[in-house]
Amino acid sequence: MREITSDDLGDIARGAAILGTGGGGDPYIGRLLALSAVRSHGSVPLVPLSEVPDDAVVLPVAMMGAPTVMVEKLPSAEQVGLAARTLAAYLGKELTHIACAEAGGVNSLIPVVAAAQLGLPLVDADGMGRAFPELQMVLPTLYGIRATPMSIADEKGNRGVLDTVDNRWAERLARSATIDMGCSAMISNYAMSGTQARESLVPGTLSLCAELGALVRAARSENADPVERVVSRLGGRRLFSGKVVDVARRTVTGFARGEARLSGMDGDEGAELVLRFQNEHLVAERDGVVEASVPDLICTLERETGEAVTTEGLRFGQRVTVIAAPADPRWHTPEGIALAGPRYFGYDIDPIGVAG
Amino acid sequence: MREITSDDLGDIARGAAILGTGGGGDPYIGRLLALSAVRSHGSVPLVPLSEVPDDAVVLPVAMMGAPTVMVEKLPSAEQVGLAARTLAAYLGKELTHIACAEAGGVNSLIPVVAAAQLGLPLVDADGMGRAFPELQMVLPTLYGIRATPMSIADEKGNRGVLDTVDNRWAERLARSATIDMGCSAMISNYAMSGTQARESLVPGTLSLCAELGALVRAARSENADPVERVVSRLGGRRLFSGKVVDVARRTVTGFARGEARLSGMDGDEGAELVLRFQNEHLVAERDGVVEASVPDLICTLERETGEAVTTEGLRFGQRVTVIAAPADPRWHTPEGIALAGPRYFGYDIDPIGVAG
Repeated sequence: MREITSDDLGDIARGAAILGTGGGGDPYIGRLLALSAVRSHGSVPLVPLSEVPDDAVVLPVAMMGAPTVMVEKLPSAEQVGLAARTLAAYLGKELTHIACAEAGGVNSLIPVVAAAQLGLPLVDADGMGRAFPELQMVLPTLYGIRATPMSIADEKGNRGVLDTVDNRWAERLARSATIDMGCSAMISNYAMSGTQARESLVPGTLSLCAELGALVRAARSENADPVERVVSRLGGRRLFSGKVVDVARRTVTGFARGEARLSGMDGDEGAELVLRFQNEHLVAERDGVVEASVPDLICTLERETGEAVTTEGLRFGQRVTVIAAPADPRWHTPEGIALAGPRYFGYDIDPIGVAG
Repeated sequence: MREITSDDLGDIARGAAILGTGGGGDPYIGRLLALSAVRSHGSVPLVPLSEVPDDAVVLPVAMMGAPTVMVEKLPSAEQVGLAARTLAAYLGKELTHIACAEAGGVNSLIPVVAAAQLGLPLVDADGMGRAFPELQMVLPTLYGIRATPMSIADEKGNRGVLDTVDNRWAERLARSATIDMGCSAMISNYAMSGTQARESLVPGTLSLCAELGALVRAARSENADPVERVVSRLGGRRLFSGKVVDVARRTVTGFARGEARLSGMDGDEGAELVLRFQNEHLVAERDGVVEASVPDLICTLERETGEAVTTEGLRFGQRVTVIAAPADPRWHTPEGIALAGPRYFGYDIDPIGVAG
């Protein structure tokens, strides 16, 4: 895939929602936004990470906020451009490439909107290989790349630039602004050179999203098991199949926090799985025992269709299969675990990965 | 007074604290900060408002936050310069003058620090002729002058620029950032031309502060009543003399909110006065009847010395005289009352002014 056309958007959104591990935004909304932008401005060139020139000026663009809000308060197209243009003006630099901060149903597609609007190529990569809830949780943080100067913009036309002493402070100040802006905002941060992008980003994420999306679609048309194909492609494992019997969800401190309870079926009869999330799934506990945790991916897929179910989309009675898949190995370094491991989120355990 | 030297700072701080109506910061801290800056950088030229050229670039600088916090978490000198430099860079303009946003023990002196550091003249004026708690509450708002682009900076080195659709949004976003920054931050906003400054600012405020400070000092050395002289100079009236018998104070939503109860003496025996404040005094109720309210000034002075008592400085047992003084007439227009009258602060009454 060397360019993203309107035909690719469905698969990318579907695959991105899987890697979003419950967060990263609703793929239906992401696809609609990108479709409108590509129809207005044309296809978006997709550049492999390895081909980004050293002196490129790469700008990630993303939505920040609670996914529960984003499904009702849709971002405006102007807002995407506003965030990128505000940061470019502050930096006083000419942008050359747009990038994805994370994989997710909205956050893999917002950069397509930005690239289409600004007439720039998009880098086939992202900042984490999944979605995480806080903005310092990207691999570039591990490489000492600063989140700021960063821009933030809302749909009303309010915007700001933050320049902070570290990436945790960027998260803190941007989160408060996001809450004021109605719990969702457009951000652009981690502006970086091509050299930095090649070093710190996860290569091929958009291609992987498109591949996952296509694979799920193909399995369905072949009457094969889409979940099994996703597990196999990601090198993951099936954790649990069951029916959603309870979801407790609250939008606090700008996040969608909560937990879902699943009652087992298909070999998991009699067992219960609890998923705890902060925008994204953080831990999966089977009968009180943690079976998988961040930084590895915990994904909830509809049992029949293989479509990802976001944490805000979890509903009583849904039949889902929960899978775990390995995160980029850099997340398993001591620095990666300190940044986004279970203890950061308040679970006093070592990370429990795909091997169980 | 055509320049501010270290000898003037005591009187300016003392007078500014009176006009601060309980807010605007502690005059002791304001004086110390300015003294250090003037000693390092020399005296600050003071320019009458009428002499500011049309094309001047005038930048107000102030502390934002809860005065209760500012007395313990002192602003750093670097922070003052950081706020002004950050905004100047964003505007891409060469600054020509510094100005005061409000009158107050800290906020009349912080601009002296900024002017000394940046080697710029200070305009003898301020944005309201008193202190008010929220940043849209300045006369420039009535003239359609935008609060933003504005900068905000903390003592750790975090900084930001906000560019909002109106001045209320500037208040909202800056207040959240201030809270994150520890409930006090340095801001620079309402950048304006000389023409705008002459139209919208209150002329002569720093001279008035110095005059009030000197007059209180002189009354003491002459064994005269300093409170009476302040009342006479401001064209105000004495509301109540009494002893502080109760202070309820809480730091919420980034403000020092609360109320003080005074038990009458010196002719007010048997009566009670309640002062309700949000950083600044908002209303004074005598035996349940509002005797004075915003937008007019309600000032609490030590009965013997005439020194202003800030709302965070109110203590059980203090003997104080409460006075009211008229605000700039523009605060009494319908637009002024809508911006900072009693109803904005939740009191369902028309403004009650100095005439009672």
